Amino acid sequence: MAEPKTNESMEKIVSLCKRRGFIFQSSEIYGGINGFWDYGPLGAELKRNVKELWWNTMTREREDVAGLEATIIMSPAIWKASGHVDTFSDPMCDCRKCKKRFRADQLCEDQGLALTKDANGKFIFPAGTKCTNCESTDLTEPRPFNLMFKTYVGPVESEDNVAYLRPETAQAIFAQFKNVMETARQKVPFGIGQIGKAFRNEVTPRNYTFRSREFEQMELEFFIKPDEAVEAIHGSVVTVPETGHPGEPQPNWGWQAWHQYWVEERVRFYEGIGLARATLGFHRQTAEELAHYARACVDILFKFPFSKRDENGNVKGDELEGVAARSDFDLSQHARFSGKPMGVFDDELRQAWGKLPKEKQDDLWRRYYENRKRYLTKSGVEAEAAGKQATDDANGLAKGQYIPHVIEPSAGVDRLILALITNAYTETVKTDDKGKSETIYTMKFHPRVAPIKVGVLPLLKNKPELVAKAVAVRDLLRPWMNVYYDDGGSIGKRYARQDEAGTPFCVTIDFDTLGEKPELLDTVTLRYRDDGKQERLKISELRDWLLARIR
Amino acid sequence: MAEPKTNESMEKIVSLCKRRGFIFQSSEIYGGINGFWDYGPLGAELKRNVKELWWNTMTREREDVAGLEATIIMSPAIWKASGHVDTFSDPMCDCRKCKKRFRADQLCEDQGLALTKDANGKFIFPAGTKCTNCESTDLTEPRPFNLMFKTYVGPVESEDNVAYLRPETAQAIFAQFKNVMETARQKVPFGIGQIGKAFRNEVTPRNYTFRSREFEQMELEFFIKPDEAVEAIHGSVVTVPETGHPGEPQPNWGWQAWHQYWVEERVRFYEGIGLARATLGFHRQTAEELAHYARACVDILFKFPFSKRDENGNVKGDELEGVAARSDFDLSQHARFSGKPMGVFDDELRQAWGKLPKEKQDDLWRRYYENRKRYLTKSGVEAEAAGKQATDDANGLAKGQYIPHVIEPSAGVDRLILALITNAYTETVKTDDKGKSETIYTMKFHPRVAPIKVGVLPLLKNKPELVAKAVAVRDLLRPWMNVYYDDGGSIGKRYARQDEAGTPFCVTIDFDTLGEKPELLDTVTLRYRDDGKQERLKISELRDWLLARIR
Repeated sequence: MAEPKTNESMEKIVSLCKRRGFIFQSSEIYGGINGFWDYGPLGAELKRNVKELWWNTMTREREDVAGLEATIIMSPAIWKASGHVDTFSDPMCDCRKCKKRFRADQLCEDQGLALTKDANGKFIFPAGTKCTNCESTDLTEPRPFNLMFKTYVGPVESEDNVAYLRPETAQAIFAQFKNVMETARQKVPFGIGQIGKAFRNEVTPRNYTFRSREFEQMELEFFIKPDEAVEAIHGSVVTVPETGHPGEPQPNWGWQAWHQYWVEERVRFYEGIGLARATLGFHRQTAEELAHYARACVDILFKFPFSKRDENGNVKGDELEGVAARSDFDLSQHARFSGKPMGVFDDELRQAWGKLPKEKQDDLWRRYYENRKRYLTKSGVEAEAAGKQATDDANGLAKGQYIPHVIEPSAGVDRLILALITNAYTETVKTDDKGKSETIYTMKFHPRVAPIKVGVLPLLKNKPELVAKAVAVRDLLRPWMNVYYDDGGSIGKRYARQDEAGTPFCVTIDFDTLGEKPELLDTVTLRYRDDGKQERLKISELRDWLLARIR
Repeated sequence: MAEPKTNESMEKIVSLCKRRGFIFQSSEIYGGINGFWDYGPLGAELKRNVKELWWNTMTREREDVAGLEATIIMSPAIWKASGHVDTFSDPMCDCRKCKKRFRADQLCEDQGLALTKDANGKFIFPAGTKCTNCESTDLTEPRPFNLMFKTYVGPVESEDNVAYLRPETAQAIFAQFKNVMETARQKVPFGIGQIGKAFRNEVTPRNYTFRSREFEQMELEFFIKPDEAVEAIHGSVVTVPETGHPGEPQPNWGWQAWHQYWVEERVRFYEGIGLARATLGFHRQTAEELAHYARACVDILFKFPFSKRDENGNVKGDELEGVAARSDFDLSQHARFSGKPMGVFDDELRQAWGKLPKEKQDDLWRRYYENRKRYLTKSGVEAEAAGKQATDDANGLAKGQYIPHVIEPSAGVDRLILALITNAYTETVKTDDKGKSETIYTMKFHPRVAPIKVGVLPLLKNKPELVAKAVAVRDLLRPWMNVYYDDGGSIGKRYARQDEAGTPFCVTIDFDTLGEKPELLDTVTLRYRDDGKQERLKISELRDWLLARIR
């Protein structure tokens, strides 16, 4: 499975997704709506399982993370503070000849070129850029198009009542930072996790569900002490190598160790649901790619069928999740724009500070001051005011005050679902005795995410004792997992149906279950999806046997 | 708890919700946004539990229901077919003097009046209607205001690109009816369930989270055969009394029995999560209240603190869920508007029809024809065309074809959360030895929905053996339920904290756990939230003991 699927298989995957009820086009009976996708019965279960696993791993099972569920429509002031109103846009252009509209950067990329900017930040097409639809070079100049969906709250459509559909779930976490910290009795370092819908009015949605206009995110904002505070308390800041898991969190970790920790935690999450490390890729953003406030960002990629191949046929992959070290930018912005304090008080820092030698204090003071001043200046605060504010901020350290920094692992649910589906997709050609070949499709989902955990099949439909026993087994398992009961067609057909749905286990109730061979009374045949192997299990042990494998 | 909470307690409930992290105002640091509410750490867990229970009860644990997860933004054609574009509005008016805006029907209601309509369907204020803010009678005429939030998909803000945020989740189910039926291998009768956000641009959001602009729904559309088909197959249609549970579904049930079944199933659901029947109310819509296509609708109410009292102080309650018998209106509309067939083929009907005496065929034909013609005429189809279409539809019966009818149990998640919170809220005044009184708050959630299932508390924080044992107990339970580990403050304080969070059980790890009394080695003190009673349990039995009570 390490070899990524090809674009050829992509078509078959899309077809299987529709045929088996994983994914439908939204509003299909009305000709669809570009960039929107629905999840059918199997897709909805797959998605629920993935979200539940993320929630449990990232919040319920951790002492240091609390959950949040905020609204999609929030005060528009949030999107001014976050910068989305001013800068969350893609360059758009039109072909004057065929009237087709493009994302200018993608249009360039698709012909091996790169969109550039002039000294004033205006987008410039490289020479020779053509319309990929009609080959014309008569293109409009690239212009920014804000990707936030806009609406009006209340009965008056005025500028005062504009609101946006959130383009990311992260900002609600920042806006509710104080409320959550206080009510959840947390102290920095701690995180806030959220799962929810987000919307981006993509110019050109593409690659099936990979880039859609309505999607779902699973985001954690993990708040940490600034390195200066860690150093004041612990004497120095531990850093770790840029690869490998740094182990259990330590009090003397700086942002770099926390960042590396979350990259590796997230990779482990993906491994734990069946995406082997070899199916993933990594991209560490370069200094040029990083936002001015970001210290690092590692994108975790998956090798999709549509991912670009380099000249040697190697696939880097497309983004599943970004893990960003965002400094104290987000909380600082909201503090400035809302006028509400976003800093925390850290008694450990206050006490440690008093015991530091003067030169150490001065050194930490100066570094914190420089960081704060750089943020303020870059964010458009005029130099004198920025200096004054940075001085106040740096003076705060001595009183145990700072604005937390944040590490943000931000994952897209729909992309992950698509990765899981393409990863699970397996074709096998079977040839029967007469030489007739048939292609068999098996969705090899990890049992943790598989939509159906077990198929329960009475050998024959017309034997009431078999049916009664099968129903009893179904009802025994159903409170604990998603069970599919199927009595229609030959047993081989029913296995094949579950293989296509990705059900990892089937149990068959046969005459031996009823005691035809007395030593097999109350046992069932358990069949494995991936190799078709079978074994005999006691009904009394079935639930725990399955729970041990699907959790 | 049968006595509904008062408006006085409502204020304290709102305050507790904020203080303990159940519910926050959205965008609070920016002054909030009217009609939008966030769920904090405890609220998010409560909501997840409720949705999970609904999903399991209504889809996973039923053979006859499949799940769906559709987008919020769909083709606008859907909302034309459903009637929302034309008629989903509330009457709105302004006070010319104080400029306050009202929902005209609520304004009348608030002063004991009722908004009426003239012969042309225009809204008319009854004499004496005043502004409830400034007492002026200078009000604008009530005018309809469409409650759907509008936006534009794609980069051009033109009429062609208008889209709406769904005002209900139901329509996606109708639009995907065929896709789901086929991929889930279902046959009528069967249902499709969905949970998701919906949006209504309420003129005056009110009553805390009860009427908000962004909310979540849990909807089931349960598709059934038309009564004529049931009668053709089974000779007659069974009806049931209007109260009481009709028992397990039978093939000869008509719409009325199915409707009553779902009303009672839903009441059982509410009882199963702690809302006793006495806390609920019922409203059977009158012929005047019903939509033209609806055959019946029973609203399940909850007696909220803000629910109106009659002259005798009796509370009827406000709507938690409507269970509507919607005939074949929805699928028929989508068939007409999309041009795609929405009917099903029923071989049992086809076979049965052939064996019916001519007069029975004619009788059923005529009744089906009348129903179809009434729907078509009421929906604006001109008489001759309606007659022709109804004839075709009725002729279809003989071939086993019909458009399914639907029973729709449609519940609001946020209203249910608010009901669970107000129902759980309990004040107790405790007086200590010195005569000092203190009010204690306990959230008596049913263990199934409680955000935290168990608090794990080491008796003392500074005894490493106690802490190690407590952490081991926490880690034993955590994969199976939401656990809160707390070692801060006196044991009494920690109990009180869990009581306020609504945690049904606490376990304390003390010196006896470590074997101080050898016969109590590896046992813990289990404390019940509701009466403070304690008992001793073995750690080895703890997980199953808890699972039996929280599931």
